Amino acid sequence: MDLAVTPDPPYYAVIFSSLLSPHDQGYAEAATRMMDLVQSSPGFLAVDSARGDDRLGITVAYFRDEESIRAWRDHVEHTTTRERGRAQWYDAYELRVAKVERAYGFRRAPADIRP
Amino acid sequence: MDLAVTPDPPYYAVIFSSLLSPHDQGYAEAATRMMDLVQSSPGFLAVDSARGDDRLGITVAYFRDEESIRAWRDHVEHTTTRERGRAQWYDAYELRVAKVERAYGFRRAPADIRP
Repeated sequence: MDLAVTPDPPYYAVIFSSLLSPHDQGYAEAATRMMDLVQSSPGFLAVDSARGDDRLGITVAYFRDEESIRAWRDHVEHTTTRERGRAQWYDAYELRVAKVERAYGFRRAPADIRP
Repeated sequence: MDLAVTPDPPYYAVIFSSLLSPHDQGYAEAATRMMDLVQSSPGFLAVDSARGDDRLGITVAYFRDEESIRAWRDHVEHTTTRERGRAQWYDAYELRVAKVERAYGFRRAPADIRP
């Protein structure tokens, strides 16, 4: 388990927040497949994803540019899966496209002593 | 439980991805306090947060503009808590500031029939 690694800004973030419905048969398999598939999409940089016990999930996928986002949006298998998401898996979602302007990271040094 | 509601773009997203360390004493209380506190910060719009069983968490806070992001960054209690985060709670984090350019939402109609 590690965090997404991205180049220096600017690049794009697709922020996908969702509420999973109770009708989630097949969701886990499809989510794993989409996470695999997006990584081979042209211009893909990295992705982070988390879902809590309250069924609220956030996936942030990072892309090089707008054209890369369109390529992923128009991917045939992604389109089919998205339709099933609306029909069955999600009670609600919000998708936001944002341009990353700056970024800061922190990584604990191995020898760090905690209080 | 509901998703963040935001006005029409443009506005800003602060994307905070983190890996929680095993030394998480006091983390849950501090996280709840920060979620309460940010909502009264000037220019704050909304926030979504999720953490999975693998300890990877994503919080996306939305703000009206850059000035609002600075106000939250410089909030005294937030600053103190951030220092404790680096000293104790997080093994790693990435913070990205991004300008939301467009957004789309989906919300299931109450009478929707699922396949």
